[in-house]
Amino acid sequence: MSQNASSNSLKIIPLGGLHEIGKNTCVFEYNDEIVLLDAGLAFPTDGMHGIQVVLPDTSYLRENRHKIKGMIVTHGHEDHIGGIPFHLKQFDIPVIYGPRLAMSLLQDKLEEAGVGDRTELRTVGPRDMVRVGSSFLVEYIRNTHSMADSFSVAIHTPVGVVIHTGDFKVDHTPVDGERFDLQRLAEHGEKGVLCLISDSTNAEVPGFTPSERSVFPNLDRAIAQAPGRVFVTTFASSVHRVNMILELAKKHKRVVSVLGRSMLNVIAHARNLGYIKCDDDLFVPLNMVNKLPDEQVLILSTGSQGEPMAAMSRIARQEHRQVKIREGDTVIFSANPIPGNTIAVVNTIDKLMMQGAKVIYGRDKGIHVSGHGSQEDQKLMLALTKPKFFLPVHGEHRMLVKHAETAQSMGVPAENMVVINNGDVVELTRDSIRVVDKVPSGIELVDAAHSGVVNERVLKERQHLAEEGVVTIAATLGWSGELISKPQVHLRGVATNIDRAKLEATIAQTIELVVSSRWAELTQALDNLSELNWPRLQSDIEMELRRLLRRELQNNPSLVFLLQTPIEPPVASGRRRSTAKVAS
Amino acid sequence: MSQNASSNSLKIIPLGGLHEIGKNTCVFEYNDEIVLLDAGLAFPTDGMHGIQVVLPDTSYLRENRHKIKGMIVTHGHEDHIGGIPFHLKQFDIPVIYGPRLAMSLLQDKLEEAGVGDRTELRTVGPRDMVRVGSSFLVEYIRNTHSMADSFSVAIHTPVGVVIHTGDFKVDHTPVDGERFDLQRLAEHGEKGVLCLISDSTNAEVPGFTPSERSVFPNLDRAIAQAPGRVFVTTFASSVHRVNMILELAKKHKRVVSVLGRSMLNVIAHARNLGYIKCDDDLFVPLNMVNKLPDEQVLILSTGSQGEPMAAMSRIARQEHRQVKIREGDTVIFSANPIPGNTIAVVNTIDKLMMQGAKVIYGRDKGIHVSGHGSQEDQKLMLALTKPKFFLPVHGEHRMLVKHAETAQSMGVPAENMVVINNGDVVELTRDSIRVVDKVPSGIELVDAAHSGVVNERVLKERQHLAEEGVVTIAATLGWSGELISKPQVHLRGVATNIDRAKLEATIAQTIELVVSSRWAELTQALDNLSELNWPRLQSDIEMELRRLLRRELQNNPSLVFLLQTPIEPPVASGRRRSTAKVAS
Repeated sequence: MSQNASSNSLKIIPLGGLHEIGKNTCVFEYNDEIVLLDAGLAFPTDGMHGIQVVLPDTSYLRENRHKIKGMIVTHGHEDHIGGIPFHLKQFDIPVIYGPRLAMSLLQDKLEEAGVGDRTELRTVGPRDMVRVGSSFLVEYIRNTHSMADSFSVAIHTPVGVVIHTGDFKVDHTPVDGERFDLQRLAEHGEKGVLCLISDSTNAEVPGFTPSERSVFPNLDRAIAQAPGRVFVTTFASSVHRVNMILELAKKHKRVVSVLGRSMLNVIAHARNLGYIKCDDDLFVPLNMVNKLPDEQVLILSTGSQGEPMAAMSRIARQEHRQVKIREGDTVIFSANPIPGNTIAVVNTIDKLMMQGAKVIYGRDKGIHVSGHGSQEDQKLMLALTKPKFFLPVHGEHRMLVKHAETAQSMGVPAENMVVINNGDVVELTRDSIRVVDKVPSGIELVDAAHSGVVNERVLKERQHLAEEGVVTIAATLGWSGELISKPQVHLRGVATNIDRAKLEATIAQTIELVVSSRWAELTQALDNLSELNWPRLQSDIEMELRRLLRRELQNNPSLVFLLQTPIEPPVASGRRRSTAKVAS
Repeated sequence: MSQNASSNSLKIIPLGGLHEIGKNTCVFEYNDEIVLLDAGLAFPTDGMHGIQVVLPDTSYLRENRHKIKGMIVTHGHEDHIGGIPFHLKQFDIPVIYGPRLAMSLLQDKLEEAGVGDRTELRTVGPRDMVRVGSSFLVEYIRNTHSMADSFSVAIHTPVGVVIHTGDFKVDHTPVDGERFDLQRLAEHGEKGVLCLISDSTNAEVPGFTPSERSVFPNLDRAIAQAPGRVFVTTFASSVHRVNMILELAKKHKRVVSVLGRSMLNVIAHARNLGYIKCDDDLFVPLNMVNKLPDEQVLILSTGSQGEPMAAMSRIARQEHRQVKIREGDTVIFSANPIPGNTIAVVNTIDKLMMQGAKVIYGRDKGIHVSGHGSQEDQKLMLALTKPKFFLPVHGEHRMLVKHAETAQSMGVPAENMVVINNGDVVELTRDSIRVVDKVPSGIELVDAAHSGVVNERVLKERQHLAEEGVVTIAATLGWSGELISKPQVHLRGVATNIDRAKLEATIAQTIELVVSSRWAELTQALDNLSELNWPRLQSDIEMELRRLLRRELQNNPSLVFLLQTPIEPPVASGRRRSTAKVAS
């Protein structure tokens, strides 16, 4: 870090979560102590071929690993805890504090990844205070969100109190009865909050976000009116929603079969900790379902986003072995498509309808609400905490800008806020907020096999392969420059009607032509053929082959050209068309 | 076609446009005469790697080319005329009737593709009647839509009058003053319409679609308030919108520079035909723009959908040579993102904002309206035409279902309508509508080079290449089964940290191991090595190499293995590790 930054100031460095929804990861640094707040993952977007998981560049943390005193987790969503198992392979975090449900989910993740032996996981409850390092005292303040057991935090630092909202909406009628601790926020507002760091997801949406409870009567009606089986799909992590669906199943005397690993996993953890309360006999295994009358069955499934491998998507594609849609089924999509998933979702809906299901979906049905506060929720947060400085986070750029405008409309001066990007180093003192530096803030891509970080070059190669396919040509050249085998050509992913035999013949001619035109020059001053500049010859041939392919195929596929030569060079120096034999 | 279909019935066979928005292509067939209505293209969706254009499978038309009497074009949108140049390479259409603007755009397309010499293009105007073949008399009825010069048609057939709405909304205050000919529709309703075939795009949207005029005051305000340069992006084909933007530029004393080939093209054709009226001196070339005061400039650009190569997208990525965004610029997105484009659009908006532009976007700004009618427009169409039978088209499955429900709510009996898919053969008689058959209805994919139709296998190969990359291995085996060159290995698009030298050594070992274990058996009964089953050996080696790659790379890339052998086999029969030399 540059010397712009004052000592005795707090540095806030978001490594992820800005200019995006995802991979929320924030560094708080004071002197030589770092505390992390959340470490999430993101999912790949278009063009990230073969990528499973997107992580923030953590080189700043790797370089400053000795400063890391601990981590604060606000809640258990993937975009807040999903990165932790990956990071623990690269640097240690001595202690992680978090709510019970998040810690329970995290524990599983760490065990599965085989990491975290040197990390202590400690659960916290409402109003718990935890000290991290010597500079940070963190207070957990209950908030309301789509995930159960979610918190905002007040971080007491040497420069003042910083409130990070975590993810929140203001839900006055929470499903689990755990109310937003507005009193504690107000108390901090009264005493003085130096800086508010606040969730910007719905900064563009006017009004208040409705209570999670508001979907209950609409789901109730949809299930009540269903003549046969009911399928419901929602986010596995929306614990309150899942809770209500299970409650409604019981009310309508339907047993529940749960499809999808993440749904089973969250339900197990949430039941175990009491966030979902229901009897064991509410659930039946899938193979029992077909033995029950249709009107006694509710199938709760993953796939609300049209994810290709999720249960509901496989059912829609008629690829699910045990579940087939039939006339009389009702399918409820209790989730809105996240931008980018819209086409996958509507395609799934259409497929289900074509097989005879009645599908209930769409914003006008009142069967989904956001877990993030809208403009009025955001104003209430600002009004309660009365911060001197403001830092909008958790959102794309225009959401951050809008959230900053909202704060200005409430009297926070424009110079008391910064709209930043990942990697920006925000310096906070008692009197100022400013960006003083930038740390690496790119992304790290992890592929399906988790076999390694996929870099930019590999992605570009994949893009080119995807668009035009690949032509592979192998040829073996003898030590006299003669083709000692018929060149082999292989097309994969290439669109063409070309005559293969003709193409192969043209390729052989081209290789022979290039070799014969270069051979004299290349072998001129050589004592021994093993000194011959094969790479040069190979690249000369390759250039001509590329030209040939463009001409013959009328497009520009990737080319892999492998020029082989016998292992043993002849002892005597060679000349073009010499009679030297190739050693076996 | 099967014998289910009665003679003396009208067959209606949509080859595209159902279960999708795009590639509208409809066949009307009576006895041995076919008339086509529109022939559009669609754009590729996720996973269609390297594809530029999606066309309907036209094998039914190719097989019945002798029946084709002509084509009716309703308007000039790409999803209604874009397929024609491709089709004319495969079968003749003797005559194409259509509105002036559509024909003008089509003429260009045909010239560019070098097709259509044997096709007569004839322009039509409101209430024109054209005879196609002996069975079809087609009447053009002016409608209102986002594209200028758009029509519905009444097709007089031996079984009765069929009205096809084309694309429409009911716009009582059209920008060009060309009013919807509701009178003619009503007259048909009075006389009796056998079947209505109607646009379902907005079947899920309640209410009326607002008039195109309604965006005028909002665009006016946005431009009036802009302190510096104004950029506006919209669909090039939205001629009315473009017209209003040009009018507003004049009003606010701004000259206009037009960016993007399609925008320039549509403006040229529309001005030429009088659909856009403005003076030449309204326009300035781009290189003049920088010499003018910012507040006298309006730049009208393509890229409203975040298309990667469009002008506005290149400006946002700072890749446009002549145009750089700066503080004080205002960018107006006068278009909503089509599902699937949302992420590209919001990323473009964010990038423009970060460079200092004020960006005006979003549904709440009143700067875009749809060109397709909502539920109330659709009801009005049903009310005016009072059809006996109803066929919803131009929409995804759930839109067709919803449109059918709307028709039922207005008294059309459920048994008097069919919700169909592309390729379904609808038989219409005076007394019945039913699906009697199915013709091929898949898609044909055309790649960037238009070099050929890309088939399913090629797409699957591209998908695999994209996800995991490709490993190419070439090895040359002598006639004694010995490796006569070091195997060459090339990775492309493969994510791995593996030691290359080690991998190459392991590959060589594997090849030698397979050869030595198979050689005796493969060569046992042979008189001459040229009889040796090389493909069998190659596939045995390939299987082992695949296993090796899975193990070593922990993923499963595509493998291309090229096994080479010298051209000339030795004359004597060989045995493993024989001393036979390889002929040069």
